[in-house]
Amino acid sequence: MEQKAFPAWPDVAARLIAVATGREPADLVIRGGAWVNVHSREVLPGHDIAIAEGRIACVVPDAGYCTGPETEIVEAEGRYMIPGLCDAHMHIESGMLTPAEFARAVIPHGTTSMFTDPHEIANVLGLAGVRMMHDEAALQPINIFTQMPSCAPSAPGLETTGYEISAEDVAEAMTWPGIIGLGEMMNFPGVAAADPKMLAEIAATQRARKTVGGHYASPDLGPDFAGYVAGGPADDHEGTCEADAIARVRQGMRSMMRLGSAWYDVQSQITAVTEKGLDPRNFILCTDDCHSGTLVHDGHMNRVVRHAIACGCDPLVALQMATINTATHFGLERELGSLTPGRRADVILTSDLTALPIEQVFARGRLVAENGICLVDCPHYDWPDAARKTVHLGHELSGGDFEITAPEGANAVRANVIGVIENQAPTKALKADLPVRDGLVEAEGEVCQIALVERHRATGGVTNAFVSGFGYQGRMAMASTVAHDSHHMIVVGTDRDQMALAANRLAEVGGGITLFRDGQELALVELPIAGLMSDAPAAEVAEKAAVLMQAMQDCGCSLNNAYMQHSLLALVVIPELRISDLGLIDVRSFQKIPLFEPLS
Amino acid sequence: MEQKAFPAWPDVAARLIAVATGREPADLVIRGGAWVNVHSREVLPGHDIAIAEGRIACVVPDAGYCTGPETEIVEAEGRYMIPGLCDAHMHIESGMLTPAEFARAVIPHGTTSMFTDPHEIANVLGLAGVRMMHDEAALQPINIFTQMPSCAPSAPGLETTGYEISAEDVAEAMTWPGIIGLGEMMNFPGVAAADPKMLAEIAATQRARKTVGGHYASPDLGPDFAGYVAGGPADDHEGTCEADAIARVRQGMRSMMRLGSAWYDVQSQITAVTEKGLDPRNFILCTDDCHSGTLVHDGHMNRVVRHAIACGCDPLVALQMATINTATHFGLERELGSLTPGRRADVILTSDLTALPIEQVFARGRLVAENGICLVDCPHYDWPDAARKTVHLGHELSGGDFEITAPEGANAVRANVIGVIENQAPTKALKADLPVRDGLVEAEGEVCQIALVERHRATGGVTNAFVSGFGYQGRMAMASTVAHDSHHMIVVGTDRDQMALAANRLAEVGGGITLFRDGQELALVELPIAGLMSDAPAAEVAEKAAVLMQAMQDCGCSLNNAYMQHSLLALVVIPELRISDLGLIDVRSFQKIPLFEPLS
Repeated sequence: MEQKAFPAWPDVAARLIAVATGREPADLVIRGGAWVNVHSREVLPGHDIAIAEGRIACVVPDAGYCTGPETEIVEAEGRYMIPGLCDAHMHIESGMLTPAEFARAVIPHGTTSMFTDPHEIANVLGLAGVRMMHDEAALQPINIFTQMPSCAPSAPGLETTGYEISAEDVAEAMTWPGIIGLGEMMNFPGVAAADPKMLAEIAATQRARKTVGGHYASPDLGPDFAGYVAGGPADDHEGTCEADAIARVRQGMRSMMRLGSAWYDVQSQITAVTEKGLDPRNFILCTDDCHSGTLVHDGHMNRVVRHAIACGCDPLVALQMATINTATHFGLERELGSLTPGRRADVILTSDLTALPIEQVFARGRLVAENGICLVDCPHYDWPDAARKTVHLGHELSGGDFEITAPEGANAVRANVIGVIENQAPTKALKADLPVRDGLVEAEGEVCQIALVERHRATGGVTNAFVSGFGYQGRMAMASTVAHDSHHMIVVGTDRDQMALAANRLAEVGGGITLFRDGQELALVELPIAGLMSDAPAAEVAEKAAVLMQAMQDCGCSLNNAYMQHSLLALVVIPELRISDLGLIDVRSFQKIPLFEPLS
Repeated sequence: MEQKAFPAWPDVAARLIAVATGREPADLVIRGGAWVNVHSREVLPGHDIAIAEGRIACVVPDAGYCTGPETEIVEAEGRYMIPGLCDAHMHIESGMLTPAEFARAVIPHGTTSMFTDPHEIANVLGLAGVRMMHDEAALQPINIFTQMPSCAPSAPGLETTGYEISAEDVAEAMTWPGIIGLGEMMNFPGVAAADPKMLAEIAATQRARKTVGGHYASPDLGPDFAGYVAGGPADDHEGTCEADAIARVRQGMRSMMRLGSAWYDVQSQITAVTEKGLDPRNFILCTDDCHSGTLVHDGHMNRVVRHAIACGCDPLVALQMATINTATHFGLERELGSLTPGRRADVILTSDLTALPIEQVFARGRLVAENGICLVDCPHYDWPDAARKTVHLGHELSGGDFEITAPEGANAVRANVIGVIENQAPTKALKADLPVRDGLVEAEGEVCQIALVERHRATGGVTNAFVSGFGYQGRMAMASTVAHDSHHMIVVGTDRDQMALAANRLAEVGGGITLFRDGQELALVELPIAGLMSDAPAAEVAEKAAVLMQAMQDCGCSLNNAYMQHSLLALVVIPELRISDLGLIDVRSFQKIPLFEPLS
């Protein structure tokens, strides 16, 4: 698919000058608005924006002199003209949507630039998958930049991903037009240990003069943090308290504060600005992860900016944190993030700087949304079979694949059990005494079975273990090919036959999430792209996801965000106990442990 | 001459990490200082800076854990640790010093980074001259970045320079390691007219992802200004009042406020921050032009920061304007401009943030100055003959070369006379009635002769005209090969024989400034490099320049900054009347005009 590249400033400078000096008419003039100037941090009523070739030619009190009979006029009628909003770090896959459908969902919310890390697809399809995301991103009417994923696998040696990302991959990606930097460097112990592969990835990015994304998910602000900073990451979005934000900024990183569907890290950190009075220029807002339901019902970056304002941040400062601060961070301050000459004409009209209703959205000089409705086409990439057929089970599964054989002669076992904790990413390493029947260990009570089904190489591998905390009852199973970060398939169930049904069903539809009870499919979210994303619109995906949540509840699960808990059970970088294709992993010791305690 | 490149961050990341985590000892620890943090805009007492490989490894409350027996310790004793100061735009040639000697002069003042536009040498030696400056800059122990000159000649069609700079030259220079962007785009009418050559130079710079320097020397903030901004310059240092500074920042440019030897544009503009409250991040301090005497007696960027503070600017904000704001502007915020990990270890110790005594200066982790004394070698480039022999007169001059023949049969003439105005760059277009003797027009009274002596191509050309306002008396002449911007030779005198003596003397010594009276040389400043710069130390040049100033006064000239007036008389871009190798130029109409009014 051919990408029509958006012309660079120098390509159209002569035209912009001609408009700004009044020798040629503008394509579009937005007339009579209050110019929200994120450079000077002022609101300047009574300004016009003249636009040509998708870029801003000039912002002047009266653009009448560069207006001709063919110039389209939009009356701002005194409303605020603010720059299109930027999401500084996020994963499109978290919405279970393709870049095109994600774009269509967020454009009405005023998001016109996103810095996306396609880390999930990198685990499934490697560099080729990143390129597909990059290429669909390039087709969109808004600016979607790609951060090259840095850590696939997330936990080398503890899991087998579909593909791995190498330092050579990173170096190659740095030559692609839409690559803006390195995706979050999650291997912070590796950086602090000067791991050569991690440093090679960072070096390739720095030598390409691009931005190294950080991810320092530890409360320790001592020498390990110092080592991580010395390694080169330029930002971090894993801070959770004021001290985290302050430490990052003092050390010359930018503090990205996130409000995602399940992340609430703005309120606890923004006091570094609102109360401690730090220079706000190094604080940035982002979402990290947004589910489709959030996009459909609550918003995107407009939601984050409103929240920051509700937390006491000056609206102009909050807007800077979602516009020019982000652009500056990525070396794009002369390309986007403000309403000034030469920049992409990404403009929002809003009648209230606090409530921030997104009334009209222009991207590259074109009206792309009005009153919540997307008015523009978001073209789909022609995803190849390699991306659409990624669930390779090796053989059709049966209940027998999920049998857990007891140690020879045991009548009961003491099992290591993954304990889910509501509203927390970490799990607990629990123990449970389980009965043995016919030589097989049987889950019972709060404990049910969990299986990691290999799906990348068709090995037929099934890793079985135990989990507790979901509260499932009756004969049921739920399966998902979204299974961070290696994205095999996680099946959780109370019944082995239901587990087989669910797993086979996902193989049939090419991936997604399903829930079976008593042989009936109660819910299905099809995610045919890499088993991670739907190419259907957000509203459709959100509706199916809602059906799934209801089905989980109907099966007895009352956990908040239960699906997220399910999809994170193979994330072998977060303590305490996880499952991978290699077995049960203790993430405190980074070692595989046996399913059962030795018999006493 | 081989340049030992300073290692990039990724080259030494493993060592920095090892130091920051305490696995290896630092090379140097500056202990117990108050950390002036220009990211957060805070002063944080009780911090140590650990340095390795010339870069900062970590800044922590106690670097004892990364200190070994070989680690050098400097006790800050509670003093402030501030980042080395940056001069965001300047011309080294204005100091009449080579880059090496300029560096030696400014290092004790705490300047550790300069963004230099070798515009003058470009007019004399073209791209090759720029490369020589670039190469000497690269030898220095501080960071001297080169802005590729954009406008040689400054006034195409009105003067003949030694060499011209083409858009191809600009594109080539963008590949050199020390080129940071395009030098001030002085042809603002050209940009506003979308002149293809100017736009090609800007495009080459933008495509190289480098910074386009601006120069908008007009009070007009209407459509021509809008056109200039739309053309792409990213900064401007020609503003002279608050409205100028505000307009530039609002339009997405950075406002560079200068305090040079003869520029006083900080006080009048900084109120945009101190009184109007604009976000200070887009304001930057610079010098533009500093004479050697200023460097010797008054300071450099430390003088500018002190002045900004004296103008009411918060010291931390003023320091940001001379450190991180500058670094960010040039895309170097992760390389220098703050005291944070990975950055070049450019550190000043000072005991007072307002008086700003520069007590110790470290550059790239090395103590380079202490209490006003430069402690480090500033290596000289091996300037070739092409740079040392640039005064080519064609033939030895005699008084006859300066004769001005009267129109046939005239007993008197009404001459067009360049009128010098004290303390102003513009001249006045005056008229004077002058007598004719033996067919030659004779200057008398306030009027004396001026000649532009061609010196680049040995054409033997001498353009004669008249000037008034210097107040010279007796038989004298003064000559200078610093003759902005084409840098031929300007000779001003009351006597044709003295004029010949002075001109021939400069040819003999390879350029500089000299003053003759009654056949005696009263002063000589030798500037053998391109006729613009001495490779002697600043103090020596300043002393010789002081002798020259005294000689000018002794000859009756009481103008303030009289030498500057002399050297600007060929600057055919500033109204009203100037001289060039092509004749007398009316800079209001941009046309050559006759020496005499038609006889009535």
